[in-house]
Amino acid sequence: MERIKRNERMAALTKLLTASPNRIFTLSYFCEMFGAAKSTLSEDIDLLRGVFDAFGLGRLDTVTGAAGGVRYRPVMKSQDARAFLSELCGELCTPSRLLPGGFLYLGDILSMPEIVRKMGVIIAGEFYDAAPDFVLTMETKGIPAALMAAQALGVPLVIARRSSKVYEGSAVNINYVSGSSAHIETMSLSRRAVREGQRALIVDDFLKAGGTARGMIDLMGEFNVEVVGTAFVMAKAHPASKLIQGERALMVMDLEGDDPSTLAIRPADWV
Amino acid sequence: MERIKRNERMAALTKLLTASPNRIFTLSYFCEMFGAAKSTLSEDIDLLRGVFDAFGLGRLDTVTGAAGGVRYRPVMKSQDARAFLSELCGELCTPSRLLPGGFLYLGDILSMPEIVRKMGVIIAGEFYDAAPDFVLTMETKGIPAALMAAQALGVPLVIARRSSKVYEGSAVNINYVSGSSAHIETMSLSRRAVREGQRALIVDDFLKAGGTARGMIDLMGEFNVEVVGTAFVMAKAHPASKLIQGERALMVMDLEGDDPSTLAIRPADWV
Repeated sequence: MERIKRNERMAALTKLLTASPNRIFTLSYFCEMFGAAKSTLSEDIDLLRGVFDAFGLGRLDTVTGAAGGVRYRPVMKSQDARAFLSELCGELCTPSRLLPGGFLYLGDILSMPEIVRKMGVIIAGEFYDAAPDFVLTMETKGIPAALMAAQALGVPLVIARRSSKVYEGSAVNINYVSGSSAHIETMSLSRRAVREGQRALIVDDFLKAGGTARGMIDLMGEFNVEVVGTAFVMAKAHPASKLIQGERALMVMDLEGDDPSTLAIRPADWV
Repeated sequence: MERIKRNERMAALTKLLTASPNRIFTLSYFCEMFGAAKSTLSEDIDLLRGVFDAFGLGRLDTVTGAAGGVRYRPVMKSQDARAFLSELCGELCTPSRLLPGGFLYLGDILSMPEIVRKMGVIIAGEFYDAAPDFVLTMETKGIPAALMAAQALGVPLVIARRSSKVYEGSAVNINYVSGSSAHIETMSLSRRAVREGQRALIVDDFLKAGGTARGMIDLMGEFNVEVVGTAFVMAKAHPASKLIQGERALMVMDLEGDDPSTLAIRPADWV
């Protein structure tokens, strides 16, 4: 291959780094790929850091030490995250989206790749320091946002099922009380899905009373896995006393009784 | 903002284009963002095209006409796709992965973001010309790969459910015969999920006899939606006569009876 120019290296570096978020690449890896010296690559990375920062495209960190190198994290600027969520709240705040039981129809936005990707990035940004080994969600609607959070964190997704009759070999089942329906439900996870001593981040679509989330925390207890955080696309403001604590929700929904005229949705304060 | 250099523009362009696959950006959009002339941006794009091509990072197309501009498609080179699938086949071809009923445990690889992203890219590459309006999958295990295919195609994902008791408003239900269990099952889709006259690409994790896929095609018929293709992560070679035709599977699995020693998995010929 002929000699590669800086602008070509920078474009290729951008693609490679952003396609594998939170993964540490050694400079040697890139030196070999481009046939360039370490000092040259170092300058490329410094320039890239500035570009990403100027255009709000995420963060490039240099990690020192034996396993050191360069790592991309798709962190959104707070103002960009708030603008994105504000627009989404406006779109969702429609009484026709209200469903029986005080739920909100989110099916369409939860399967728009571009929207769930941003949700995943905002959630991941809050939990890089907690260093989860995997993201856990409960089927079905939270899967896209959870997958995108897992991608941004550079970790696998683990999906708990509603039933163990799913051809996945031996499984751990727990019963839990669904906070919204007050029914006893079952949650199931394949034995080989996670390992003892790992750290889990729970991501789901909707938080009402917290029964399902509580169930996921208990399920992780059965596997001796530590839950380092819980994140949701939407949380209802009421009941204020939930079965879990310290949750992070992207949006908060207010609804008095079942009165559609009281529907209000706002971005969470922590974003 | 001070004047932006070519290498900075090219890095930012790479991030913006690759983050929104198959979306057409006008040159004017970038001209405004970078404060640069159209001729300059044109040169940037030409250089980028060369870089993407040289490093196998996908394809940059110039789209002419009134709605024209530049569009990124994360197409993998055939040799890269085959190498990725061959490695995966090797990993999966373990008798301990065999499950009752002739299924294979794919749970772990189907929730590795990096793996399903590549699967989605390979599937999307086959269906850009068919121009689907959305990707349809049946919950649960196919969702991650289907979401990534949808992302690469730049279209929404639509998820059919096993039951309509899922708080999504009015739904269309159909009954279908699961080819593997020969049981009657129900499939449900929210009325507001799709519109008449749209085009669907079906993506799922596992194809055995094709009963579920047949059900999804029939379900689309109820919505007057045309199915432009079907794609699977894994297809069993037997039964050879399936309930659907023309499917694209990434990998093909051979198993004589239930004899683990006959397990063989290979990348599909079309990749």
